[in-house]
Amino acid sequence: MREVAIIGVGSTVFGKFPEKAIFELGTEAVQAALKDAGISPKDIQFAYYANLYGGMVEGQAALRDAGITDIEITNVENACTGGATAVRRTWYDIASGLYDIGIAVGSESMTTSPIAGKLIPPAKGDLSGELGMNTMAKFALSQRRYMDISGVTLEQIAMVSVKNHHNGCANPYSQYKKEFSAEDIINSRLICDPITQLQSCSTTDGAAAVILTSLNVARRYTRKPVIIAASVIRGGDYAFRQKDITFSDVTYKGVKGAYTMAGIGPEDINLCELHDAFAVNELQHYVELGFCERGEEVALLMDGVTNIKGRLPVNPSGGLLSKGHPLSATGVAQIAEIVWQLRGQAGKNQVPDAKVGLTHTLGGEVADLEAGAVGVHILKV
Amino acid sequence: MREVAIIGVGSTVFGKFPEKAIFELGTEAVQAALKDAGISPKDIQFAYYANLYGGMVEGQAALRDAGITDIEITNVENACTGGATAVRRTWYDIASGLYDIGIAVGSESMTTSPIAGKLIPPAKGDLSGELGMNTMAKFALSQRRYMDISGVTLEQIAMVSVKNHHNGCANPYSQYKKEFSAEDIINSRLICDPITQLQSCSTTDGAAAVILTSLNVARRYTRKPVIIAASVIRGGDYAFRQKDITFSDVTYKGVKGAYTMAGIGPEDINLCELHDAFAVNELQHYVELGFCERGEEVALLMDGVTNIKGRLPVNPSGGLLSKGHPLSATGVAQIAEIVWQLRGQAGKNQVPDAKVGLTHTLGGEVADLEAGAVGVHILKV
Repeated sequence: MREVAIIGVGSTVFGKFPEKAIFELGTEAVQAALKDAGISPKDIQFAYYANLYGGMVEGQAALRDAGITDIEITNVENACTGGATAVRRTWYDIASGLYDIGIAVGSESMTTSPIAGKLIPPAKGDLSGELGMNTMAKFALSQRRYMDISGVTLEQIAMVSVKNHHNGCANPYSQYKKEFSAEDIINSRLICDPITQLQSCSTTDGAAAVILTSLNVARRYTRKPVIIAASVIRGGDYAFRQKDITFSDVTYKGVKGAYTMAGIGPEDINLCELHDAFAVNELQHYVELGFCERGEEVALLMDGVTNIKGRLPVNPSGGLLSKGHPLSATGVAQIAEIVWQLRGQAGKNQVPDAKVGLTHTLGGEVADLEAGAVGVHILKV
Repeated sequence: MREVAIIGVGSTVFGKFPEKAIFELGTEAVQAALKDAGISPKDIQFAYYANLYGGMVEGQAALRDAGITDIEITNVENACTGGATAVRRTWYDIASGLYDIGIAVGSESMTTSPIAGKLIPPAKGDLSGELGMNTMAKFALSQRRYMDISGVTLEQIAMVSVKNHHNGCANPYSQYKKEFSAEDIINSRLICDPITQLQSCSTTDGAAAVILTSLNVARRYTRKPVIIAASVIRGGDYAFRQKDITFSDVTYKGVKGAYTMAGIGPEDINLCELHDAFAVNELQHYVELGFCERGEEVALLMDGVTNIKGRLPVNPSGGLLSKGHPLSATGVAQIAEIVWQLRGQAGKNQVPDAKVGLTHTLGGEVADLEAGAVGVHILKV
């Protein structure tokens, strides 16, 4: 397998854009990535495009408006892991030698979609859904259980959101750009006890794109290619096979595969963008990703280890909590953030001397399965 | 690249199943393919799942209920070419050596989807759509133009539908199973002049699945593996670059790539399942696929060359017109039909002595692009 590098990244600002169609957001991200790479639309040989809540062939529409036609385009969907899936498949087609230059795009408009964020009745056959056990309810039960068995308090969980909202303030792509105290977070609107609004990611519109090439080709375009050291997507197992609903087995297995692929361990990671869909998840993912043992996760946060100036900054972009979560765009945007960090282009949120970064994306609600898919990427310079 | 073979195929009956969810149809097809291959769910190492009008991670739900979890699953969408896209990506992951055994599934429920077949307002930015230039209108204008420049009559076009409905009568998987005369077809309800209802494919629910392995692995399971000699997906170019709206450039380029990949030409094809979304398309595709020159297509049909007992049977299954068109399932179902034919298992519709078959799937309406994607597969024994 050939080494694959990222030579260009682009993103829209994340936020609410009721005037922009899904494919228009996609085009904006594609154009930004082309400009960043210094590459012509005609050089793109193939594309993967992640979207969940749009119509048909959104990728073809978005790429067309950036001048990219007449190539193999595959639209992918893996719920919130769709963007990471697009990157994984683009990586593989280059690593295996099928193509030399490709683009992975993720785009979502939660605002203009006719279905996103609406109260959709449970799918036929979704017995848990018919009992009212929707995604929010599951996350709330899991958080309650986690608080019970770990002794972690709501005040400590809120500190994840405090940190990420602080980071988001200095990120020009971020949706919120506002500081919140632990008190603000706990006292915000109750969504599903014990989860409040500011412990949750918001509904967001946005898109991101990354351009990948073989390492040989990359050297033609940049003196600082960012290398993809690992790219993993895997689906979850039956929920009944999980020993603990507060531990994401699929994340644990996915990241284990990524470390093996990269030939490194969690101790080698300099920074991380992880899937903080809810504040509590960040603490749980510290453990699953191997950053600490169970019981040490609160200390990692409270001691500042995961602050931008700490030993292992987590979500320097602001994460899903502050930067926002346009579902299919998130996995691509996380990778764009790591690329900016590894290149030293992250501005006020720059992590010093970072050489190796990890992204983690988790998604997909399927009854009886713990999750639809996890995506893990390890990038290095 | 390794040779890749198909060791199992499965399909639901095509029709209207208001009681079945999309993923339930998918599970049924997966189980049929597993049974046909004589393989355990645990042996499936990865999957691609095509769906357009469903919710999130439909593939994970369908595969879970067939006992397949804990693997890499990628949900894909390429409008009507989604199923062919799933097969193409499954083929490539095995051909390139990433995996040994995988499944490609396509599933669609036009009946239970909350959006399929509904009159959806044109997407933001779709100026043609806002002018009323929807898919039906485009196909109707194209058919009118084709009739004008070629002299082909409505009676001749109707004979495509007569042939395919005749074929569908003997196919147990077919939706219609009813003979129609040219008069029936011309006098059926006018949809968009000159297209009548029986010149159009219908709205259909159904799913199909194919299990692919490396040729070495295939020999463990079957003495008659069907080999994938070519697998191509490509997207369309700008419409303004087309010289003729009655000729599908993307089909022409896609099939040219497939013939090159397989090292054969159109004269080597023994049977074909092609994308007869409208009756007129079958005549047009004869030319684009290289079966004859422009001007000879009506003779190919009227002389019986494309009948089941002819030299080059086309749509022995009944095609989209009679078998039905559950969008994302179609590309997979076409391949299942060719596999049955090449194995000699096609029952009353068996094409004698077929060794090489071709499938053609076309899909995706994108303003200013001639099409979203074309899929071409060549199978051989």
